[in-house]
Amino acid sequence: MNQFGKIFKFTTFGESHGKAIGVVIDGVPAGLEIDEEFIQSEMDRRRPGKNRFSTARNEMDKVEILSGVFEGKSTGTPIAMVIFNQNQKSKDYSNIKELFRPGHSDFTYWHKYGIRDYRGGGRSSARETASRVAVGAVAKLILNQLGIEIVSGVVEIGGVRAEEEDFDFAKESEIFAVDREKESVWKEIILKHKNEHNSVGGVVKVKIKNVPVGLGEPIYYKLDNILASAMVSINGVKGVYIGNSNAHRLSGAENNDEISEDGFLSNNSGGVLGGISNGEDVEFEIYFKPTPSIFREQKTIDIEGNETTITLKGRHDPIIAVRGSIVAEAMSAVVVVDMLLLNMCRKMDNVLKLYK
Amino acid sequence: MNQFGKIFKFTTFGESHGKAIGVVIDGVPAGLEIDEEFIQSEMDRRRPGKNRFSTARNEMDKVEILSGVFEGKSTGTPIAMVIFNQNQKSKDYSNIKELFRPGHSDFTYWHKYGIRDYRGGGRSSARETASRVAVGAVAKLILNQLGIEIVSGVVEIGGVRAEEEDFDFAKESEIFAVDREKESVWKEIILKHKNEHNSVGGVVKVKIKNVPVGLGEPIYYKLDNILASAMVSINGVKGVYIGNSNAHRLSGAENNDEISEDGFLSNNSGGVLGGISNGEDVEFEIYFKPTPSIFREQKTIDIEGNETTITLKGRHDPIIAVRGSIVAEAMSAVVVVDMLLLNMCRKMDNVLKLYK
Amino acid sequence: MNQFGKIFKFTTFGESHGKAIGVVIDGVPAGLEIDEEFIQSEMDRRRPGKNRFSTARNEMDKVEILSGVFEGKSTGTPIAMVIFNQNQKSKDYSNIKELFRPGHSDFTYWHKYGIRDYRGGGRSSARETASRVAVGAVAKLILNQLGIEIVSGVVEIGGVRAEEEDFDFAKESEIFAVDREKESVWKEIILKHKNEHNSVGGVVKVKIKNVPVGLGEPIYYKLDNILASAMVSINGVKGVYIGNSNAHRLSGAENNDEISEDGFLSNNSGGVLGGISNGEDVEFEIYFKPTPSIFREQKTIDIEGNETTITLKGRHDPIIAVRGSIVAEAMSAVVVVDMLLLNMCRKMDNVLKLYK
Amino acid sequence: MNQFGKIFKFTTFGESHGKAIGVVIDGVPAGLEIDEEFIQSEMDRRRPGKNRFSTARNEMDKVEILSGVFEGKSTGTPIAMVIFNQNQKSKDYSNIKELFRPGHSDFTYWHKYGIRDYRGGGRSSARETASRVAVGAVAKLILNQLGIEIVSGVVEIGGVRAEEEDFDFAKESEIFAVDREKESVWKEIILKHKNEHNSVGGVVKVKIKNVPVGLGEPIYYKLDNILASAMVSINGVKGVYIGNSNAHRLSGAENNDEISEDGFLSNNSGGVLGGISNGEDVEFEIYFKPTPSIFREQKTIDIEGNETTITLKGRHDPIIAVRGSIVAEAMSAVVVVDMLLLNMCRKMDNVLKLYK
Repeated sequence: MNQFGKIFKFTTFGESHGKAIGVVIDGVPAGLEIDEEFIQSEMDRRRPGKNRFSTARNEMDKVEILSGVFEGKSTGTPIAMVIFNQNQKSKDYSNIKELFRPGHSDFTYWHKYGIRDYRGGGRSSARETASRVAVGAVAKLILNQLGIEIVSGVVEIGGVRAEEEDFDFAKESEIFAVDREKESVWKEIILKHKNEHNSVGGVVKVKIKNVPVGLGEPIYYKLDNILASAMVSINGVKGVYIGNSNAHRLSGAENNDEISEDGFLSNNSGGVLGGISNGEDVEFEIYFKPTPSIFREQKTIDIEGNETTITLKGRHDPIIAVRGSIVAEAMSAVVVVDMLLLNMCRKMDNVLKLYK
Repeated sequence: MNQFGKIFKFTTFGESHGKAIGVVIDGVPAGLEIDEEFIQSEMDRRRPGKNRFSTARNEMDKVEILSGVFEGKSTGTPIAMVIFNQNQKSKDYSNIKELFRPGHSDFTYWHKYGIRDYRGGGRSSARETASRVAVGAVAKLILNQLGIEIVSGVVEIGGVRAEEEDFDFAKESEIFAVDREKESVWKEIILKHKNEHNSVGGVVKVKIKNVPVGLGEPIYYKLDNILASAMVSINGVKGVYIGNSNAHRLSGAENNDEISEDGFLSNNSGGVLGGISNGEDVEFEIYFKPTPSIFREQKTIDIEGNETTITLKGRHDPIIAVRGSIVAEAMSAVVVVDMLLLNMCRKMDNVLKLYK
Repeated sequence: MNQFGKIFKFTTFGESHGKAIGVVIDGVPAGLEIDEEFIQSEMDRRRPGKNRFSTARNEMDKVEILSGVFEGKSTGTPIAMVIFNQNQKSKDYSNIKELFRPGHSDFTYWHKYGIRDYRGGGRSSARETASRVAVGAVAKLILNQLGIEIVSGVVEIGGVRAEEEDFDFAKESEIFAVDREKESVWKEIILKHKNEHNSVGGVVKVKIKNVPVGLGEPIYYKLDNILASAMVSINGVKGVYIGNSNAHRLSGAENNDEISEDGFLSNNSGGVLGGISNGEDVEFEIYFKPTPSIFREQKTIDIEGNETTITLKGRHDPIIAVRGSIVAEAMSAVVVVDMLLLNMCRKMDNVLKLYK
Repeated sequence: MNQFGKIFKFTTFGESHGKAIGVVIDGVPAGLEIDEEFIQSEMDRRRPGKNRFSTARNEMDKVEILSGVFEGKSTGTPIAMVIFNQNQKSKDYSNIKELFRPGHSDFTYWHKYGIRDYRGGGRSSARETASRVAVGAVAKLILNQLGIEIVSGVVEIGGVRAEEEDFDFAKESEIFAVDREKESVWKEIILKHKNEHNSVGGVVKVKIKNVPVGLGEPIYYKLDNILASAMVSINGVKGVYIGNSNAHRLSGAENNDEISEDGFLSNNSGGVLGGISNGEDVEFEIYFKPTPSIFREQKTIDIEGNETTITLKGRHDPIIAVRGSIVAEAMSAVVVVDMLLLNMCRKMDNVLKLYK
């Protein structure tokens, strides 16, 4: 079930060390200008190997569009995009061929499928998220036309929380930090863990600005539960919280957002009421576990069940949350576009407007 | 999009103060004994009006099965279940006909659809969750045959966290508390808020025991992201966290679950790796906001946009989390059954086993 | 998989001799006036027991709406409709409890599910099509607002083909005959077969007028292949042909529809090119087998595999095609509405028109 | 909606004269040996340019697998297959850039999307069916393991019907003719039309042997209505008939298949009862219109609505039915595999067999 979305629907494919990864998007409205430079610039934001806070695997992640675009515009037919893998070092993985890495899905893929492409985690590798960024970029091309903007940034690392949220700063920060002051603290935390052959967890916040009222399809395809699904599907994400992440500790009088002529007087709801956007910024946090690949000896078993230990080598991010924030933005874009398209069909008024 | 699931798929319908609510389940395997008493007993666990910690609306929530069962067994055809509404007091709501209640979806439904059944929140009412409990009960009948058990309980209210997790005690507790000692503290907190015409938030934990390895369908229908989707779709749930809810503050060395011959040496992952169950208990927390219906004057606008105030009357739970825990169990059951059925098709071995 | 449609999506439930049959429609646009009398009038067109050309089972088929309608209008939430069964005579079926009726699905349901509700065919009974007519009526309420009209009629019975196609006459004809002259011939054929304890096949034609250009979603949700799916899903339908049913015998020069300023110069295509409506009437034929329930002795086996014979009793239509034409109309309406709604999302122009 | 299937689900992409066409299959059970030679041999059966009865466009249709296969076996992850286009002559099409070819979807794509890739029909080209043959080949690899065999052949051309049905002969025939005697007559008919710059229609029959009882998911995902959907989705197919294509002219006594200990005594049903396979061969006919591309002057309009004429050049099959039969086989394989996988989840017995 490598597919996401109802109308703006995409399917990703590919393994970390296979020939290629990619995505087919079905449902891009016709007539959208496909700005390939923009797509590539989004890829570059997620691209590994740019600094010492991410893995040394240096992939150019060059996206090639195979279909669905004619004379620079979407035609309404599927847009297939492929990224050929280049910097694979499959040999790195021969030593883990028969071992299950703790914190990874080696164990579960093996038991579910009875076979697994062990090279770099195969399909379960975060490399898959490059495809998500590609599709997210296409989604953003639609959002751009409507003035809907998505920003994200890291708000907590190793238990140290941001005190300000400056998403403009996050765009320039090497670690997508929203807090100028905390950035250096966080960088130290990351490097300390890296130097100790360890890794560290973090929290990312996403904000979607200028969302029209009415997005989200109750009861089971609400804006918030599908955002939750999208977020938790990202590698390393263990939790998500929509709106004020203290809501469960508040009273109703504290948490309710009162309403004025100009909109809501607060935004504890995170811009979603009853699963439908209310016109405020849609905001949520996502919780990333620390990278499971650490370079320390760990207890494990082999595929025959014998106890042993494993000491990983290879190239890995010391923190998932940083580059994960770009993936979270991409998935957010995809959800919002799907909700925009679905919402078009919900009123007879709209039906009559387009057909009469 | 009032539907959930892929193989074990259900559609709910109905409004709080309409004729009836109900559900059609499509995909119940044939030959399952349908124990109607068990289904009703699950309904009774969620049923309102049982004590002073929940709303005074007293609904019997009697489930009537209309189809799909023959001589006590499922036939493989859709099981339709209906619950006729009885204790509606529509008059309670005439005063909110043209006002948007803060914290509710009145505002968003109105803007999305241009029309709304304002009586008791209509479709967006938590009354819809009674249908979920009915379908969850059918899912549990399947799980029972495989020895898979789901337990749940309240682990935090008003910021006070449990110190022990006794799910057996939760079953008997009026407020489904997992902590015998904290139960009385929490009850006081609830009643205090109730008496002050206020409400309070809380946290629920769900544990699914004896889950076989291999459940979950990467990449976008993982066990955890679909559980997240299911949970956040529940009224009042703002967040979800799979496994150790401190993971984002830990290092890799702390968070990784090492593996032995007998299974995992810890369960920070919450029983899910790469979106697939690993054989440990599947565990997660869900965060409920406080009930938005409070009996205090709040600022709002009317459907024409004029500023005004609103003071609610009616019958409401002072806390959503308590009865919400039963709904969370039901949705968990539904997810696990869907994953069980999907997983049957994933190996050629299984195909050959059933057809050759 | 008792569901049909993508946006205008419905799920039917219920068995011939169970408590009730019904349908839940998910995706009716909000603000549609729900004319219950019209819905009932459509039910009455399909209703059995009206004359000697259909079964004597006399069901009133009274539709009750349980949800999704408020103050006479759709609210955008699921519309559940239920029809309680009344004129069941379950005793009629005790003699076939352990026998497989030739031409029926007794054999296949038994082997697929290992259990079956044998009373009147249970779920596989054409009684299920009453639910389709109810949902089709709601679809027609939408089509009516856009001036799209669906007509149908019987064009062949027992190998005798119509020479004229008068769909207005079909509306009044007891057997929905499109040919005033052939009507009496066909009636004779039907009664002859009936009197001989036999049954007869027939052909129905459906015409959808005033369909806008652009409906249909290539490549696998084309207007024509989904119409084909919808038609063949109807009880007793074995084939379908879109447009001129002689096309496979023609040359390209004969079959191509040339184009003028005013539209197409012929309509061999049946109004569909590349799976998309071209603005001409959408036309197709469907082929019904004869009713399998005949009152003659037939060879069969029992559920244990022993050879025996069966002689049916009960009340059955001597021809399926007649009442089947109403079901075909209903399913056509459902397909067209689904395509109308899907098509709204296919152009950036539309996106901008509704959101900017 | 370029997707087909529920469990064995695939998405095709690509245009006739774009960079590539291809398919992503989601849901191939893990552990299937992926015989690339077999896949290529299936491609070769459909490949154009082999003889004078098909188009002169000479494509090698070399399939490249990008993902989902490891050490020769499926891993349970998506299998992406791509075919890079080689023998495009886009220049051939510059003259039709602003004209609508009669019988083609130029007109409808233009109106639906407001933009179209006019080169060779773009997405609507039968070139897309190469992707279907690739996915069909993978489906056949599964069927082969279960002894299920699919054969097909041409049974009628230009109104001349076969008198024998020899599917073994069809395999060797240049025009996949099932009738050794009629083959030469049909060849003459084809060449006559070709020489007259015309084209001709035909009928194909498909037979699926050794299908287990129980495949098909009532009510709307029946074996037969999904086969109908699959068939009519193929370029040029206008109709489909399951079983004896004379059924609508028969009486019940003639059409019913009586049952003996050894199975059914006839197979008018085409192996499907109530939408579920009954263990007999699944048989159906499909009706192909003549190729719309003919080299004669035809009336049409340009994209601005002005009347004009068009005279096509280029390379085209004089008959669609011949190569279409290979596509029909492929789509049949895909449907049967999907039904096989879905059916695994329908009985509690199976659930218990695989999990206990």
